[in-house]
Order: sequence, then C-alpha cells, then structure tokens
Amino acid sequence: MAKLKPETRDKLKTVSTATIATALFKRGFRNQMIQGVQPLDPTKPAMVGEAFTLRYIPAREDLNPITVFQDRSHPQRKAIEDCPPGCVFVIDSRKDARAASAGSILVTRLMKRGVAGIVTDGGFRDAPEIAKLAIPAYHKRPSAPTNITLHQAIDVNVPIGCGDAPVFPGDVVVGDGEGVVVIPAHLADEIAAEGFEMTAFEDFVAEEVMRGRSILGLYPATDPQTNVDFAAWRKKHNR
Amino acid sequence: MAKLKPETRDKLKTVSTATIATALFKRGFRNQMIQGVQPLDPTKPAMVGEAFTLRYIPAREDLNPITVFQDRSHPQRKAIEDCPPGCVFVIDSRKDARAASAGSILVTRLMKRGVAGIVTDGGFRDAPEIAKLAIPAYHKRPSAPTNITLHQAIDVNVPIGCGDAPVFPGDVVVGDGEGVVVIPAHLADEIAAEGFEMTAFEDFVAEEVMRGRSILGLYPATDPQTNVDFAAWRKKHNR
Amino acid sequence: MAKLKPETRDKLKTVSTATIATALFKRGFRNQMIQGVQPLDPTKPAMVGEAFTLRYIPAREDLNPITVFQDRSHPQRKAIEDCPPGCVFVIDSRKDARAASAGSILVTRLMKRGVAGIVTDGGFRDAPEIAKLAIPAYHKRPSAPTNITLHQAIDVNVPIGCGDAPVFPGDVVVGDGEGVVVIPAHLADEIAAEGFEMTAFEDFVAEEVMRGRSILGLYPATDPQTNVDFAAWRKKHNR
Amino acid sequence: MAKLKPETRDKLKTVSTATIATALFKRGFRNQMIQGVQPLDPTKPAMVGEAFTLRYIPAREDLNPITVFQDRSHPQRKAIEDCPPGCVFVIDSRKDARAASAGSILVTRLMKRGVAGIVTDGGFRDAPEIAKLAIPAYHKRPSAPTNITLHQAIDVNVPIGCGDAPVFPGDVVVGDGEGVVVIPAHLADEIAAEGFEMTAFEDFVAEEVMRGRSILGLYPATDPQTNVDFAAWRKKHNR
Amino acid sequence: MAKLKPETRDKLKTVSTATIATALFKRGFRNQMIQGVQPLDPTKPAMVGEAFTLRYIPAREDLNPITVFQDRSHPQRKAIEDCPPGCVFVIDSRKDARAASAGSILVTRLMKRGVAGIVTDGGFRDAPEIAKLAIPAYHKRPSAPTNITLHQAIDVNVPIGCGDAPVFPGDVVVGDGEGVVVIPAHLADEIAAEGFEMTAFEDFVAEEVMRGRSILGLYPATDPQTNVDFAAWRKKHNR
Amino acid sequence: MAKLKPETRDKLKTVSTATIATALFKRGFRNQMIQGVQPLDPTKPAMVGEAFTLRYIPAREDLNPITVFQDRSHPQRKAIEDCPPGCVFVIDSRKDARAASAGSILVTRLMKRGVAGIVTDGGFRDAPEIAKLAIPAYHKRPSAPTNITLHQAIDVNVPIGCGDAPVFPGDVVVGDGEGVVVIPAHLADEIAAEGFEMTAFEDFVAEEVMRGRSILGLYPATDPQTNVDFAAWRKKHNR
Repeated sequence: MAKLKPETRDKLKTVSTATIATALFKRGFRNQMIQGVQPLDPTKPAMVGEAFTLRYIPAREDLNPITVFQDRSHPQRKAIEDCPPGCVFVIDSRKDARAASAGSILVTRLMKRGVAGIVTDGGFRDAPEIAKLAIPAYHKRPSAPTNITLHQAIDVNVPIGCGDAPVFPGDVVVGDGEGVVVIPAHLADEIAAEGFEMTAFEDFVAEEVMRGRSILGLYPATDPQTNVDFAAWRKKHNR
Repeated sequence: MAKLKPETRDKLKTVSTATIATALFKRGFRNQMIQGVQPLDPTKPAMVGEAFTLRYIPAREDLNPITVFQDRSHPQRKAIEDCPPGCVFVIDSRKDARAASAGSILVTRLMKRGVAGIVTDGGFRDAPEIAKLAIPAYHKRPSAPTNITLHQAIDVNVPIGCGDAPVFPGDVVVGDGEGVVVIPAHLADEIAAEGFEMTAFEDFVAEEVMRGRSILGLYPATDPQTNVDFAAWRKKHNR
Repeated sequence: MAKLKPETRDKLKTVSTATIATALFKRGFRNQMIQGVQPLDPTKPAMVGEAFTLRYIPAREDLNPITVFQDRSHPQRKAIEDCPPGCVFVIDSRKDARAASAGSILVTRLMKRGVAGIVTDGGFRDAPEIAKLAIPAYHKRPSAPTNITLHQAIDVNVPIGCGDAPVFPGDVVVGDGEGVVVIPAHLADEIAAEGFEMTAFEDFVAEEVMRGRSILGLYPATDPQTNVDFAAWRKKHNR
Repeated sequence: MAKLKPETRDKLKTVSTATIATALFKRGFRNQMIQGVQPLDPTKPAMVGEAFTLRYIPAREDLNPITVFQDRSHPQRKAIEDCPPGCVFVIDSRKDARAASAGSILVTRLMKRGVAGIVTDGGFRDAPEIAKLAIPAYHKRPSAPTNITLHQAIDVNVPIGCGDAPVFPGDVVVGDGEGVVVIPAHLADEIAAEGFEMTAFEDFVAEEVMRGRSILGLYPATDPQTNVDFAAWRKKHNR
Repeated sequence: MAKLKPETRDKLKTVSTATIATALFKRGFRNQMIQGVQPLDPTKPAMVGEAFTLRYIPAREDLNPITVFQDRSHPQRKAIEDCPPGCVFVIDSRKDARAASAGSILVTRLMKRGVAGIVTDGGFRDAPEIAKLAIPAYHKRPSAPTNITLHQAIDVNVPIGCGDAPVFPGDVVVGDGEGVVVIPAHLADEIAAEGFEMTAFEDFVAEEVMRGRSILGLYPATDPQTNVDFAAWRKKHNR
Repeated sequence: MAKLKPETRDKLKTVSTATIATALFKRGFRNQMIQGVQPLDPTKPAMVGEAFTLRYIPAREDLNPITVFQDRSHPQRKAIEDCPPGCVFVIDSRKDARAASAGSILVTRLMKRGVAGIVTDGGFRDAPEIAKLAIPAYHKRPSAPTNITLHQAIDVNVPIGCGDAPVFPGDVVVGDGEGVVVIPAHLADEIAAEGFEMTAFEDFVAEEVMRGRSILGLYPATDPQTNVDFAAWRKKHNR
C-alpha cells in the first residue's frame, strides 16, 4: 500500500467532500460517495486516511455464539489491532443496521492506536459514547444489538462495497460534516491539489454572493471579470 | 400568481405545520405534507411563502457534463435568479438524495435575493454551511455529489410532486421545526385564520394539561365548561 | 400484570440498551430491539417501565372523521387516561410515519400522569415540543398530519409488534440515547442483575482501553490477568 | 356478523376489483385495496366472501419452538378449523414475507372446509402446491421458512391491517386476477349493485372502443349519444 | 420530432434490450434502462417506437373527483387521443403503483389508434385484460384503484423520468420479454446498426457455446480463430 | 471441499425447500433461505449442489470499461470455467438488480460444463433465453444492463452473503419452484435424511386432509392414531 503523502493528507483536510465529489465527477467517477452514512458528531474535524477494510457476511447461528470473541484471531478483533495508524477503518455491513457493526470499546481502541476514523454502512452500538470520542465515526444509525446477531466478520483488508461505493484497501477516504467520499488511491494527490484550488475559488465565490453578486457569470466563471476579481482576492488573502 | 397577503403570511408564521395539516384534513386534504424532509437547522424561525418550483428528471450523461452550467440559461441557475423574493423555492428531486439538489452557493444567492426558504425531496450538498445561513432549508439528508451526477433541471415553475405531495406554483408553503406543508393557494387565507384560532385553543389546552387536567372533555372540547374556561383564558391573555 | 420491582427498575436505569441486547442474545433472543426508532431528545435520562400498548390499524375514512375524538371512549384517548403510572406507552403504528401516532398534548398528559415514557414505530407530531417535555419519547421521525389521516386506534394493551419486535403487555421496556429494547417480563430481574454486572466490567474495560491496553485478552477476558485486574478495579471503585 | 346475501355474492363474482375500487372511490374510500398481493394462480375464478381474520406479531423465540403446534388451541391452527365456510381467511403478516404465513396443508384444510379463499400480506410456503388447489390464494411472494421463524399468531377475527388496508371481520373481500379489495360490510349490497351496472357499461365501452370509437364522449358518457347507444346495447345483449 | 426510419425500427425489433444496453454502455450511457418494469405478457413481439410522454403528479383531492374525466381536455384522455401511431406511450407515475396509471379501455384505444406500446413505472388496472390485447404493455405490477386516487395527469409530451431513466419525447423506446430501454433519439440509427451486428455475433457465440466451446477467447473474441469462425458462420447463415 | 454424497443429492432432490427450512429451524437456523429470489422457470426440476461462489462489489468506472472481459483471468469469466460440475454457482450481487449478474451465454456455458444451477440475488440479462435452458436459475428479476454497469467481480469461492443468507463454499444449495435454501455442509446428510422422512409424513398428511380429516391431532401428530395411520400408509405405499 503506497503511503499517503503528508501534504496530500493536509490538503484533503481542508477540502469538503462535496468539492472532492465534483473533482471525481470530472474524471468520470459517479459512485464514490458512501451513500446513507452520517457522522455521529458532525462537529468533528475532517477525517482523512487510507482505507483498511473489514468484510461482514450474514451471521450463521452455529458459528456465532457469544463465545466467538474468545478466539483472539477472530477477524473483527484482529482487524482492530492490525489497522495501521493513520488509516480509516471501513466496514462492509451490507447496509444492514439492524445489528451493530462495532461498539465503543473497539472504537476507543482504534482511537488509541492512532487510527484516523471509522465508517460502516450499518450502525454502531454505544453510539452516544462513540460520538464523544476524539475519532470521527460514520454510520447509518445507532444499533444496540451485538454484531454477531446478524453479522460475521469474514475477511480483512479486501476490496469491499460500503454504502454502494467500491472501496479498495489503500483508497483515500475523506469524511466531513456531510458524509464520506472514497478517492481511488492513484488519484489522491491530483484530487487533493485540484480540490485545494477549487476550495479557494468557492470561498471567493461564497464571499461575493454573500455581498450580493449574482451567480451568473460568477459561478462558473464565464464572465472574464470573475477571473480578474478572483486573482485580486487570492493576492489579498494570500491563497 | 395572486400575492400572498401580508396578514396571512404573518398568521401562518405562528401556526404549526401540525395544526395546518389538521385544518387541511377537515377540508378533505390528506396528502399535503411533504413526506420525509427535515429542517437542516430545526431552530430556524418558521418559513412561509408561495411555491416557486423547479423540476428535475434523471440526468442523461451526454447532456450533463460539468460544463453545462456555463450556459447562463441553464434552468437551475436561471430559476435561482428568477425566484421572486418572499417565495419558497421547491425542488422535485424524485425523492432521490443520492446526488445533491443544490449547494450552499446557490442557497446563499436565494437568501440574498430575499427568497423565504428552500425545500427539496432530495438532499443538499454543503449541508453544514447551509444550516448556518439565515434561510430555512429542508431536505431528506445531506448529499455531497454534484446535482448533475443524477439530476437534470428541466422545467421552472410548473406543478410538481415533492415528497409525495402535489405542489402548484403559488401554493403557500409553510415549514417549521417538524416539516413542510403545502396549502392550496385559494385556501391560504381561511387556513391561516382557522389555524390561528386553533393555535390559541391548543395553547390553552396545553396549559390546562400541564396543570394536571384530563384530556377527556377538554380536547376536544366536549365538556361545555371547557369553552367557558377557554373564553376566560382568551380574555386574560388578550388572544 | 406482575409489578416491576423498584430495584430492578433502578438497576435497568444504569444499563445501556446495548448491554441488555447482549444479555438477551445470550438467552437466544435476537429480535427484542425496536428497530428504527430514535429518541426525540437523546440527552434525556434512561426510560424504564412495563409496556402498556396501543394498536393501530389503517384508518378507514368513514370511521375516522375529525369528530371521532368527541367520543370519550375512543381507544386512543382512553388509553392515554388508563396507562398506569410508571409504565411505558408503546404504540404499534405499523412502522408508518406518514401520519402522527400522537401529539404534544397527549404526551404531556401521559407525563403528568406519571407515565415513564412513550414509544411509537411511527412518528409524533409537535415533535419539537415533545422533545422539550420531561418524558422520554421515541419515534421514527416527526410527522405533522393528525393520526386519523392514516391510523385508527383499535385495541388497548394487547400483544403488538413495534419496530419488528414483539411487545407483550408487562414486558419491561428500556430506552436510552441509542434506542429501545424490550425485555420479556419474566426475565426482567435476571437481565437487570446480569446487565448491572456487565456494565461494571465494560466500564473497567473502557478505562483500560482508554489507558492504552489492547482488547486481546481483555475483552472478552480470556487473559486471567484481566479478571485479577477487574477484581482490583471493583474493590477500588466500590462496585 | 350479518350474512352476505347470495345475490350480492353472485354479483360480486362478476365485477372486477378495479370496478369495485372505483365504486368505493366515489364514496370516499381510497385505501381498500390490499396493496402488494397477487394471486398464486391468476386464472382462478373470482374470490368473494366475508373476512375472517388472523393477526400475527413478530415471533419471540422462547414462545415459538417447533413444538408450539402440539397445542390444539394454538391460534393459527384453531383459526383454520373455525373459519366459517364461505368466508375469506385474511392474515395480517405485517407485510413481512421473509417467513411463511401458512403452507399447503393448512390451505388444503381451508379448501376442504368450504372456505372461499385466503389472503396474506406476507407469503405462503409450498406455493407451487397451493397454486394448484381449487381455492383462490393471494400473497406477496413465496416464502419457504416455517411461520414461527418470524410470526406468532396472536388474535383471531379482530380488525387488522392487511397490505395497508383496514380489514374488519365481516367486511366483504373480493379477489380477481389483479388483486384483492375490501368492501366495508354495510356497503356490500350497494357496491355489488353499482359494480354490476358499471360492468355492463364498461363491457359496452370496451366493445365500442375495440370497434374503433374514440373515448371522448364515450368514456365517461358525456356525449348523449353514448347513453342512447348503451341502452340499445343492453337491450340487444339482454343485460 | 424526427421520424424514426422504417429500417431502424425493423432492425431494433430484432435486437434485445440487453444488447442495446451494452451498445449504450459503450457510449457512456448507464441509466437508460427503465428499472423495475416488466411486460404484462412476456411472449408479445418486441416493442419499438418513439416516446410520447405523459407526466403525473400526486393527486390533490379537490382537483380529482370522479367527474374530472368529463372534461374532454383532461390531459390523460387528450394524450390518449393525441399519441401518434407508431409511438410508445410512456407515463411518469413516480414509481408509485398504489393506484393505476391507466386501464384496459384506454390501452385498447391506444392499440386501435396504432400506438406501438405503453409503459408506466406505476401499474395498470385491468391488467389481465391488457395482457391479452395485441399491444405490448409494461408496468411494475397490477393496480386496481382508479388513477385519480393518487395520480393527476399534468403535462403531455415533456421530458420525464420513468423508472429512474430519462425519457425525452422522440427518444426511441424498445421493449422485449426482459424490459424496456430508452435510446436517445440522435443515436437510434447507429445503435440499431451496431446492435444488429452484435446480435449476429451473439447468435454465433450462443451456438458455439451450446456445442461445448469455452467462452475464453470466444466471448469476447480475443482468439483470432473466433473471427475466422464467425466469418464462416455469417457466410453459411447469410447474415 | 467434501464431496456431496450421491444418495444425499438424490434425497434432497425430492425434498422441498420448505421442508428443509423447517429441519434447519429445528437446529436453530433461521436465515438460510436466500430471500427474494425466484426461479426463472418454476417448472424446472429441483436444483441440488455444493456452492461455488462469486463475489461482486460496486463497479468503479475506470476499472470496468467494456474491454475488461478481454482479460481471460477476469474473475467472472474464470469462475465460469472453474466451477466444478455438479456445483451450484452462487453470486453475491449485493441484492442489486439494476444491472445484470450474468447473461445467457455464460449460463449456457455453465450448463454445458455440467453445473447444477445458478443463483444471484441480483438479476440476469437475457432472462427469457435463460428460462428455456436446461439448467435451473434463480434471481430477483430480469435486468438487461451489462454487469460492469454496476458490478465488479472481485473474489471467487469465498464465503458470501446472498439474499441475506450466509453462503460458504461447499454448503449444499437446494432450489425448487419456491426458492433456494442453503444447508451448512456438515449437516447435508442429516438434513437430507430427516427431510426425506418429513416428506413422507407430509405426503400422508396432505392425502388425509384432502380426504377431509381435520388438522388437529394430525398435523402435528399429537393424536396416537395418526402414527398408526401413518405406519399403515407407509406400508401400503412402500415408503
């Protein structure tokens, strides 16, 4: 897995998932948003990291008694200890939030191990506690039942689907107050660079619109004056 | 489009969508609630205004490159500039929140132009920013992907469906912390008047129940004493 | 209906729905969580009480004019006055939130009568007001239309389904910031006792993980040292 | 339960569910169609009979071992033996077809007992066998798992919801190749009479349209000539 | 509206919707399949024609009494009389099959007028009768309630969504036993030509596979021998 | 993968999925039915074989051009050539039928290679052709778009979810006119034996009920006479 460059990570922390989704759309990607997930605490700082994945299948009752976690090599527990610091832990829960994908103790452990965030297309248990932890977490809705009620962890760090988006290990996962987007690994640097520039322009446009300017000619910048004004704005704001 | 009377607008600002829904139910209307939408900021003041509509169809890829917004007559951008102040901008997104209906820059523009609010049965991008703007906004859930990923604006100010409710241009749209209801234009004055009276009665009832009174005979007022007490309450509270 | 013991009630107030769900799972119960409901105010204290139920069927128009509530023996109104203090009022709304299950006046009355909480697998109207009342309330989403738009109250205190969970009158219903779980009446005492113990262990584990300890051997306690440490922790914390 | 008159039953056997739905719509009924069910064999003759109902709630595991049917008073088995001949057996399965509502042996028993038909908003097991029996049956889709996997029979012959329609014991249930509609008991005679007349007119219209006549003026009969022609047609066809 | 060329129509009648979908995919179109519709009679010949559209919005009760069809200019009735022969009548029913989009009398009229087929993303009433008519019809499922129960016809021959696909008047609509696909008008000739060629190749491949040949190298034709064999096959079969 | 014994295969061919589901339920298995799939041709003989699986994730556009199948090691094409004769090919399509899981050419190849059947929780393209092939096939609904529109084959013969059921390679998959059930590999022999016996009893019961006997005491056999009669029946019918 190629390492995410620190400057790419830093840039992505300042770019919204909306802007990244547009940059991806320009390159022909229409399904990189993890659909239907929300932050447990929308005021958390942005989440950026490479995907480390866990795949669930439906639980078979005989293979999932409560004693199953006594096995230290159980994929869920092992994955929690193996996820590299700086990565985002992404779980394919088949969009089923009727039982939990994980709970506060495991998420606390990820946090302590330096993991950058956690995402499931199912739900977390102990959601109120997880919301208070210093790690961004995203899910569909809270879900108290223990995960083995409906889920069985089966594979670690393989390509998965999450919220109808493809997620390959090493893809760069970005989350903000709105949701989570997946950047194909080989595009992370250029998306970060382009997103960073787009953000400057959007901040300029937002200021202009707030001052009363029409969007026509401004957004997109079809009026040449817009580019002149933007250049002046960048100089003034040193961006 | 007949202008909404200022006194009707003022009254409706004090009446809940629940009360309006009941007044409509009494007249045989069962489907005027825009189902499945919520305020981005539930603490915003009430939203009241005539509907100005935008209709989306599924996006066809060849007609929706990122360059499409360079056309100043693009229906979405034109609608944003044409929506009259005081109106509510209502978007038929076919209940599909997988791509955005609009983002913070367009919503800011609507706010600056004096538009009374915005509603979609899809989702907004830049939702955290929109939540902070001084304009009420309602959607299903946040949605970062640019609207042309799945939506193509096709018609401005025609009758639409929004959240399974019929919305005709000029209908009076009211939103509060609970949701959004659509009042047929010709009924706005009488619904406002009746809702205003109902609200006084409900406030009286709420006080009585809070003081420990049973609902039987009080709500509805089948006990004649209830009307006596209500008359006294109105006098006392000057309502 | 066997009375819920005060000590059982007190213990359950300190046990999370997640922990209760696990204790039930150990006994073979997989469907006791009321799926898809959330607290109107997630910061409310825990809700504990015996289930008192109300069953709705789809409303037939001729049987549900607005005048129907003038009948003091209407099941919905009667149930509100009959629900014993300390119980939880649980409504089977067939998971349909397109019209309300109840509104703030009725919920206020329940609160004044000492009822412990209210749950519907549909939606409440006047949701912003209900959220402010001193009674825990759980639903799917706010819903302004009056309940007779789609619901007809038909039976009081019979076994029902709520959010895909079976609810028998007298079952012990527990709610927290995450959701609502239903404990079969005959298991309330033992689940409370076991959950109380589990909570102590989970609090210990949470502290240890927060201090940097790995989950392997700790959670579950497959390493004998864990039990030694837990015993010391209990002594120290007097739990 | 007032007995369904033989002439009403006979008339209803010749009237389509579509025509009945229109006659009900004229009287303000919009939700009497059992939504989402289909005949196991669409070529069966029409089904007409008074509703005899069975209500299911979600199965609780401890109450639903495979041995539960050894109790002869189990509501499901008792209902099968108690349903009067000529009635339609209607099951409220909460629209959940993941486990069966009943299987071929029970449906065969109903058939032998002279029951007029069976409807569930869930699914039947042994569906291919049931399709071959001489009794009309309607469901959502086939479903092999035994009903106690997810359903517990709890009440016999109470008002229920079925496919989002209200069904009261004694209501007249009509099924054809298209679906199932529920006629409130007190309206059965007049709906049968009106439907019978409407069917004659629709047959006349169908013939005219098949001969090439425009629908304008014909359907509905706004052109006076239509009524003249219809009168002639009735005379000629002795209807 | 440019006329569909007879030779294009003839070719398309021999090409499956699956093959057309692939030809569209090669050109970047991923959403041209009308999702979730099926033929009422899967044995009907293929349907080909230009789209003539009808748009529904949710019915408002006061605007949709049973008398509404007495108005000869009602959009639904007018559309039925105006749809040009050879076209396919496509209805945007917002994917809502709880009430009918149309019934057998209107579909018979379309058939008599020479219309090539009818499609709705809702449901037809009188479905068993429509299945027997000599006109291909596609819907989601049968639906007996009259359309004004939930639908109001509002616009004729405008761009619509149908089953999540964009449909512009004049687009070429093709249906077979599998479903319905929409070809953008300007691509009809080239898709027909390419699909015609692809069909020959697929018929050749199907024969080879049926004779026991492996798909590797054959499908797609990465083995040069495949092209040699295909050339021989074409010669032999005169295709 | 332990080989399925010929006698087990033969027995399972005579046992319905409903009976197998009950035998599994008795052993604590509640989720072994592949939910929501149906046979393309319900008159086909029963399908029995060991599971050979294929896992799909959502398609990423850059990895799924039409040229992708030119790679002979593409997992979908390779799996088709590698699936052992006598096995059932089971595809995890994430319950998404908006694009195809496979088409008639690949299914023909499986048939020619002696594969026992094919199942997807998505949809097949060329469904009318597949229905005519001499191999049982099960899906959710027909789906014309090529699979790379939404699916990317990623893993061969790993544990998967299919229609909410867990499927491990080597599990024994049984299909009939009703649906598909998955028997854990280690239970195949005993489920086959028990199901075979249950089938005899159910055939006896069906005959008795058809002759007019009540189900009480007969089904289940709580009346001792039932066992006497069944013994005589077995003798008479040599079963």
